[in-house]
Amino acid sequence: MKSTVLYGPRDIRFEQRDDPKIVEPTDAILRISAACVCGSDLWPYRGIQPIGKPTPMGHEYVGVVEEIGSAVKTIKRGQFVIGSFVFSDNTCPNCHYGYPSGCMNREFASGAQAPLFRVPMADGTLVATPSMPDREMIPSLLTISDVLGTGWFAAEAANVRTGSTVAVVGDGAVGLLGVLSAKEMGAEQIIAMSRHPARQKLAKEYGATDIVTERGDEGVERIMELTKGVGADSVLECVGTQEAMMQAIHSARTGGSVGYVGVPHGVTLDGEELFFEHVHLMGGPAPVRRYLPDLIDRVWKGKINPGKVFDLTLPLEQVAEGYRAMDERRAIKALLLPD
Amino acid sequence: MKSTVLYGPRDIRFEQRDDPKIVEPTDAILRISAACVCGSDLWPYRGIQPIGKPTPMGHEYVGVVEEIGSAVKTIKRGQFVIGSFVFSDNTCPNCHYGYPSGCMNREFASGAQAPLFRVPMADGTLVATPSMPDREMIPSLLTISDVLGTGWFAAEAANVRTGSTVAVVGDGAVGLLGVLSAKEMGAEQIIAMSRHPARQKLAKEYGATDIVTERGDEGVERIMELTKGVGADSVLECVGTQEAMMQAIHSARTGGSVGYVGVPHGVTLDGEELFFEHVHLMGGPAPVRRYLPDLIDRVWKGKINPGKVFDLTLPLEQVAEGYRAMDERRAIKALLLPD
Repeated sequence: MKSTVLYGPRDIRFEQRDDPKIVEPTDAILRISAACVCGSDLWPYRGIQPIGKPTPMGHEYVGVVEEIGSAVKTIKRGQFVIGSFVFSDNTCPNCHYGYPSGCMNREFASGAQAPLFRVPMADGTLVATPSMPDREMIPSLLTISDVLGTGWFAAEAANVRTGSTVAVVGDGAVGLLGVLSAKEMGAEQIIAMSRHPARQKLAKEYGATDIVTERGDEGVERIMELTKGVGADSVLECVGTQEAMMQAIHSARTGGSVGYVGVPHGVTLDGEELFFEHVHLMGGPAPVRRYLPDLIDRVWKGKINPGKVFDLTLPLEQVAEGYRAMDERRAIKALLLPD
Repeated sequence: MKSTVLYGPRDIRFEQRDDPKIVEPTDAILRISAACVCGSDLWPYRGIQPIGKPTPMGHEYVGVVEEIGSAVKTIKRGQFVIGSFVFSDNTCPNCHYGYPSGCMNREFASGAQAPLFRVPMADGTLVATPSMPDREMIPSLLTISDVLGTGWFAAEAANVRTGSTVAVVGDGAVGLLGVLSAKEMGAEQIIAMSRHPARQKLAKEYGATDIVTERGDEGVERIMELTKGVGADSVLECVGTQEAMMQAIHSARTGGSVGYVGVPHGVTLDGEELFFEHVHLMGGPAPVRRYLPDLIDRVWKGKINPGKVFDLTLPLEQVAEGYRAMDERRAIKALLLPD
């Protein structure tokens, strides 16, 4: 098969690789229906997170089960399935406590920007849809694999409740789906921070009540104005930079919460400052596997339409253009369709 | 009156100062029944937290209302009262949300190691006991003012629940009362980290089920052993150093919680490490005012005996010896009694 490999900064190649095979009896092989480029793929793409060797890319995926190992029990050939960007056994204590992304046997997915993809611990990782989905539903189902699940976790980690005042830092796909998640959880006021008209529009469609274009300290000031000088109950940090993290922490009210899901790059927190900020902090890789049944159900019933974050659709073989478009912020998120 | 002033590292003086007077109509003047030396007083005492000028010391206090300003409505002359180490109006949005220690008009108490003490915002800050307490109850009531309230907050911030597994980092008065708080909140396993026999004994009396003498990475390993390789649901950080903070974070299970109440001195957190640790973090100055009615009730009814943390009682004029004994770890906590 031909699939996506990153060789170095901005050097994405679509090249011949061996087809994946069942390695462990708990594996499944999926025929990918749709994959995509993640904001977090841009860290290594830009060379900010160096890679040691050519690396197969892609960790968001939906597809049809092509083959299963001899020990796979719940997942069947021919099912349409969604998995998390973290493979998990779904049986260890960490999974039991609701953190499959911290599974004691976890593996981070890689190589899903391809026509075929091997998923270890298939029974633990994958959830099947009730039946074969319509084509139009596939983008929304695909978001559950990472960006919707991650936005959902940001809102959960930030303790969003009915009536909450929420601020969202970051207008990428995760931030936008953080807005959608906060809305689903009953937030009353949702302040989206964005300077980009198309993203502002989608944020509003997903439930944002206010848009703040300022960043850093000025952004914090605007949020204080919009919350009567108190700060937001919940802040979703969906970027991963020092500026975004501090903006999030300073935007939360005393006793409020920050859910941070942007993978931190060069972020340092001063203990004393954090102490006097008096905010709840929670973040990490989203426990997507835990959310799969609920989020599949919401998409399946047409309650939410997270697939709108895909504003660029490309055949898989043009994956390099998908990276370029996102790197240059011409696209929010690029959907990749194998032949 | 003669009262306590810190002039510089290890230079505590008990010297003549003006009696406090009503300054604002919302003030009250207390005749102090008991005060004490706090672990946090040792930071400036040791010169780790420099003071710019001679500083009146003491922020934990119980006493009888001697005088009230013209605007004081709920607090009466002659009442026995307890206040928080943070003065608060108890009406602003931050107080309303349960964080009086983040009150928009807050002031940090100072100068309570004295026979008379001025309390601003008396109606917001002070709570009266049902009647005049017996002398033996006074030490326990005094702990509510800071160390018990702070240990209680550590347990609350660390989400201690019925059946929780809890680890407590720090065997000072706050750590010991963190053990007591976790026990009151229904924790099943409470691991106290202490090398000091007298403190281990009191920790066990307060509900500790296990004692760990190791520190740093070795301490973390022991906690992992005691929790079947999973980590603790809740960890109370009651020290404020880098080592203690990292020990706390690494001792919590995935998805677990760290409540940190040791005032951080030179603590820095790496964002990426925190992200992959996947723990809830909450800390800050304890919202003691919110706990006062409940904790007074528990002491009043004899359910808890937090006053046992005082293992040294001195006349107020010997306050300097109280500091020395705590600095040299000869005493857990020194009770100071004015004439």
